This record gives sequence, structure tokens and C-alpha cells, in this order.
Amino acid sequence: MTLEEDTLNLHRLLKGKIEIHSKVSLDYKFNDSKEGILGLIYTPGVAYVASKISKDKEMAYNYTSKWNNVAIVCDGTRVLGLGNVGPEAALTVMEGKSVLFKILGEINAIPLCIDIRDKEEIIKFVKGIQPGFGAINIEDIESPKVLEIVERLQKELSIPVFHDDQHGTAIITLAALFNSIKLVRKNISKIKIVIAGAGSAGYGIYKILTEAGAKNIIVTDSRGALHKDRTNNKNEDHISNPYKKEIADKTNSLRIDGSLEQVLKGADVFIGVSGKGNLIDKDSISVMNENSIVFALSNPDPEIMPSDALKAGARIVATGRSDFVNQINNAVVFPSVLRSLLDLRINTLSEVMLVSIASAIAGIIDENQLNEDYIIPKLDDPRIIHIVNDALKNAIQKHVDNKIS
Amino acid sequence: MTLEEDTLNLHRLLKGKIEIHSKVSLDYKFNDSKEGILGLIYTPGVAYVASKISKDKEMAYNYTSKWNNVAIVCDGTRVLGLGNVGPEAALTVMEGKSVLFKILGEINAIPLCIDIRDKEEIIKFVKGIQPGFGAINIEDIESPKVLEIVERLQKELSIPVFHDDQHGTAIITLAALFNSIKLVRKNISKIKIVIAGAGSAGYGIYKILTEAGAKNIIVTDSRGALHKDRTNNKNEDHISNPYKKEIADKTNSLRIDGSLEQVLKGADVFIGVSGKGNLIDKDSISVMNENSIVFALSNPDPEIMPSDALKAGARIVATGRSDFVNQINNAVVFPSVLRSLLDLRINTLSEVMLVSIASAIAGIIDENQLNEDYIIPKLDDPRIIHIVNDALKNAIQKHVDNKIS
Repeated sequence: MTLEEDTLNLHRLLKGKIEIHSKVSLDYKFNDSKEGILGLIYTPGVAYVASKISKDKEMAYNYTSKWNNVAIVCDGTRVLGLGNVGPEAALTVMEGKSVLFKILGEINAIPLCIDIRDKEEIIKFVKGIQPGFGAINIEDIESPKVLEIVERLQKELSIPVFHDDQHGTAIITLAALFNSIKLVRKNISKIKIVIAGAGSAGYGIYKILTEAGAKNIIVTDSRGALHKDRTNNKNEDHISNPYKKEIADKTNSLRIDGSLEQVLKGADVFIGVSGKGNLIDKDSISVMNENSIVFALSNPDPEIMPSDALKAGARIVATGRSDFVNQINNAVVFPSVLRSLLDLRINTLSEVMLVSIASAIAGIIDENQLNEDYIIPKLDDPRIIHIVNDALKNAIQKHVDNKIS
Repeated sequence: MTLEEDTLNLHRLLKGKIEIHSKVSLDYKFNDSKEGILGLIYTPGVAYVASKISKDKEMAYNYTSKWNNVAIVCDGTRVLGLGNVGPEAALTVMEGKSVLFKILGEINAIPLCIDIRDKEEIIKFVKGIQPGFGAINIEDIESPKVLEIVERLQKELSIPVFHDDQHGTAIITLAALFNSIKLVRKNISKIKIVIAGAGSAGYGIYKILTEAGAKNIIVTDSRGALHKDRTNNKNEDHISNPYKKEIADKTNSLRIDGSLEQVLKGADVFIGVSGKGNLIDKDSISVMNENSIVFALSNPDPEIMPSDALKAGARIVATGRSDFVNQINNAVVFPSVLRSLLDLRINTLSEVMLVSIASAIAGIIDENQLNEDYIIPKLDDPRIIHIVNDALKNAIQKHVDNKIS
């Protein structure tokens, strides 16, 4: 059987990877209640709960599943490496996410794959569902539309909004980078980092790297390196894309022009989030600095195959795939981060918090275990959930302390 | 402990009555697949499923949970007898519904309690979520807004739309009526029926009774009996409410004017869906015909208490409450009807189908068991689900036969 056959067979058998369960059965007897279970969980009893919540909406956290409900919102426009496959096709991916949310984070994640494309309408939609959810996870919506949606929702909602392609990828990439530079004894403030791809992931990674102290970052899109001077060219799409404009303004201060291959010369780190397989060849890697770090994260085909990158002289190589060592996978991050956001009732994830989480995840691997083939914990490592929670608790505490002092 | 204390304690302990479960565990090994379970249900394998569905949206029924997903959509404007309590408070009621959907119908029902009030925006919302669901259940939205929403959605969606307050209540009321008139040996075409309440339930009941052959129906609202001549009065709200106008046009052909108490004179059946407890007194019941049937369905307080109705001469009395005999409860209907709509892939429920279901549910009670205190099966009667399925299958078959002949 091929992977395709196995996958299709399994999905045909399952007919859905998740299902709703009831926490009670109809023959359950609660304490000495004269009323049967139905009279408590449904009419007439439930009216008392509804009345209580209607007087104070916050009570929904105490009496309903709101505290543990996450909506996975996706319009199907940028699913995996497949692109715009539509919301029905996105559903199977979001069910997979929901399984991971449940198994790794004990969260009720509800896939909402919507036939709504317009930016303002998606914002309206998410605002609409807010009452029943403790957090929102935005997933696989095309960029730059999604970046504006997330920015707006973070301001306009009273529950946290996580964007896995942006925040999740940024955290796990930085965690892997922290451990990689520890191995090769380089300093984040001194290394040259090239990011291929200026979508959600590229934007998120530039932001977190900057917060973590990186000073020399160049981001490329299909036209080559972004920099301030490119902004002046009227044909550039970052005139109408404020996120590309921000990257151009805040990175590549020397305004180095050129293709991805050209700017890789003398780079210490390559991070590929271009969505394009086999984007670069061995020659581009061989001109990087000694002890170079190559994260070729596009799926299913990485920007360069690990064997080629290693042959070309890379010291540490990671991909997004499970069939190579060093899988840089969002799933290490999103269940535990959402678990903490829900438990700690945090509404806004700052860049400082994202860096703290990355640092904590990197720290899971002991110095004596750390090596070129083990820079990032496995996604089912049971320590992750506690360590992320502690990191966020400390970040909040520090924030409070700063305010006090 | 009071019912209020028991209910609040139970809900505080449960913190939500439903939860998401995964159908697979991460250590599951599928056949001889070289890939671990994660590689099948998530990347990279899931991409094959997404590709397959993107080429044919119908495949979502085979490879995802769409076939078994029902969205419970509620804006919180007309919840139980409580009225406009808001979406957060509605959540606890919809979780209760979801439990019943699961236990009685094996359905994944997802509560979506939305902070959206505008009619057009609610329609847009439901259209938006269509890709991930096999059916929609509209719940506890205020009338007449909801009637138009349901009518529009039934035309504009490609999945079935059920409105429990309208269709569910109508089916179960007619089922109870079928058995009641069998007991008192009256004929539906000859009896006088008075319905108190012209909202969703009153409208649904008038429609199904008409389809079932009732000829003499009078519907009252807070101003008394609806009839054609009232339409001419400019102050009447049914000028701007097409559903009240329809009731006025199609019922009460003698254009009898008067209060609820006045029109009850000589009535055989009273059906209270007014939302108002203690609306009528014994005197109003005592002027009804011999062997009168009284369904006082408002919750938590019925239009008249059963003991009073019986004292005033009623032969058969039913309420919506579980603490009296003859509970006329939607929960007998909605899980089994949605189960059948999903399984048979029926997109539109015609009035003929609603009557067939009511007749089938009534038929569950054997003639020798039928009595004044047992006119309707209990909601967990295991025969309901099969009988509803058969009734709908037959209704479709008849429809096909009619088309052929």
C-alpha cells in the first residue's frame, strides 16, 4: 500500500477523526436530586444556569465548556502546500489539528471551515462566534489578508487569537534556532539570517527573531531580497502589503539587493518558509558561512533535501517533515500554547511571550543530549505543556513586576 | 437541595456538558502502513484526502465528519421561557441539546451561540458554515425574524435546515393529538382547535394541522383571535408580519373575533404555545366541548395547571414538563429526525413528511396501551429512531412514485 492508499482507506473507515461526547449519561443520578439528569442538564433546571449567565456573561466560563473551547477558523485558501483547496477539503486537515489539540492539550477544538473569503466578513464571522469560545485559532488563510485579520481580531476580541502559521511557526523555529546556535557557539545578535518567504510564516519569524535580538536579517520573496529602496518601485506589491513594507523597513539595513542565492553568501542561517520545494541547490548552501544552519521548512517538499544541504557543508539541517530528523513542527507548540492561554486567561500574546515560550521549549533538551540530530523536542514530549505554562506565567509575572517597580 | 442548587452544582462540576473526542490515539498502527498514525491523519498523508475533496466537494461526506455534523445556531434572543438572555447564557441550553442529539441520535451537534442579531447577517453566517456540516438546527431565535431566516435558508442552502421550535414542536404536538382524538373518537377534519400563540411554534402547528386535515383552526395572539378582517386594521402587527398574515388568511374562515377565552367556547382542542404561564383559568376550559383535549405547553409554567384543567372537565391534558404525565417534548423528535435527514441525505422537509413522522411516532403506542395518561412515547424509547427513518423513507418513496405515475 502507498501512503496515499493507506491515508484514503483510513479516512474512509473513520468518516471523521473527531466526535462529540456527552459527559453525562441519561441514567446518571446526581446526589440526592429529586429531578432526573435530564431535568438538570436540560429543561427545567438548565433555565437556572442560563439566568445566572445572563446576569454575568463571565459565568459562562464556570458553567459551560467555553473555558475549554477553541474555534479553528479556516477559509480553505492556503491549506498545507496545496493552496486554495476550499473549505470542504480544509475540513480534513482541521480535524487532524483538532485531534492534536485534544490529545496533546486536552482542548475541545471545533473546526469551522467557512465559505467566506472577504476580509471584513471573516472578521465579522469570528466576532460572531466569540460568546461560545475561550480562544480562536486562525488557520491556513492566505496572506497578507490573514495578517490583517489576526491583527484586527487581537484588538477587537476579548478572547485570545492565535495564528498558528504565524505565531506557532515562529516559536518552534526560534526554539530550534536557540539550540542550533548553542551547538555551533554563535551569538544571535551577530549572525546573518536569511528567510525565504514573506507570507505569514516569514512575517512571524522576522518579528520573533528581532525580539530575540537578531540584528542581521534578510527576507526574500519571489523577487529577491526585501529592503527599503525596493519600496520606491511602483510595481512592488509591498506598496499595497503593509506587512512586506514593515519587513523591508525593519530588516536588511544595508539595503542589499539580489536574489536568494546571492544574499545567502556569508549567511549563518537559512530559514525556508517559501512554500516552494527544491527552491535552492547545493551551490547556494556552499557559499554560506562555516557551521551553517539550514531549516528547509516547506511541505511536503523542502527548499533543499537534507542530504544535499549536508553535502554542501551545512552543519545542522531541519525540515517540516516527520521522515527526517529535526522536524520543526507547529504541533509541538499550538496545543500547549492554547492550553496555557485558556488556563491563564491571557488575551494578548506579546512578542516577549513568544520568545519566552521558544526559549523554554529549547531548554527542554539537556546540554548533554543536544546534538546535530536532536535540536527540538518531539511533539508528544510530556514536559512541553508544563514548561510552556510556566514560561507564560513567568512572562505575566515579569510584566506585572515591571509595572510595579 | 433545591432544583436550582442541584443544577448549578452539577454544572459547576461538569464545566461543560459535552467535549470533543479523538477517534484515534497516537500509538494506533493502521494496517501495515509504514507511516505512523500522525503521518496519516495529519501531514503529510492528509494532503491526499484534502486533494481528493478539493476535486469533488461531495467527497467530504465520505472522508470527514460532515455527514454527521449538525450546527445548533442560536442568537440567544428567545431562550426557553426566559426570552432574550444572550448567546453566552444560551450556550448551556444548546449544550443540553447537544447531549440529547448525541445520546438519542448519535449525532455530533456543535452549539454555535452567536453575537449576531441582524436577520441578513444570521443568514450569511449560516451560509458561511455550510461546508463543514451535514445539517443545520436553528434554535431559540425570536419570531418572526426566525421564520424568515428558516424559509430563506431552506431555499438557499444545499443541506437540510431544521427549526426545532417550529418543526419539532409541530410534529410532537400532532403526534399527541393523533393519539388523543383516537381515544376520544373524534375526527381531525371536524374538531375545533384553538392555538394560543402565533410565534414559531404556533405557526408550525397551524401548518402541520392544516396538512393533516384540520379545517377549523383559530389562532390567538395577545390581541385575541387572528382573522382576515383584522388585517385591515392599520395598527395590527401582522401587516408587517407575513406569517401572522398567512395564519389570518388561512384559518378562522368564519372570521370570529374575540379573546382567547371567548373563542375557546365549543372548542375540542386547546394548544397553548403562548410562552405565558397561567394564561387561562378553569372557566375557559369548562366552556369547551365534551371530551376536551388541553395541551398547555408553555415552560416552565403551563397556560393552565393540569389539575385545574382536569377539574374544569378536560379529558386529556398534556404539558411540556417532565414532572407531569404526557410530556410533549421536542426531544422525542429532533434527534431522530436529524439522524434521518443526515442518513437519507434529505434536503427539504415538506409538510407531508412532517405529518408522516407525527403519525409514525403516534403509532408507536399500541391501542391497548393508549390511555389518557400515555398519549406520547417517552423520549428515550428506542423505537422512535427506526420508525422516523422508515416514515421518511416511505415519504420519499411515495414522492418518487407520484412523480413516476
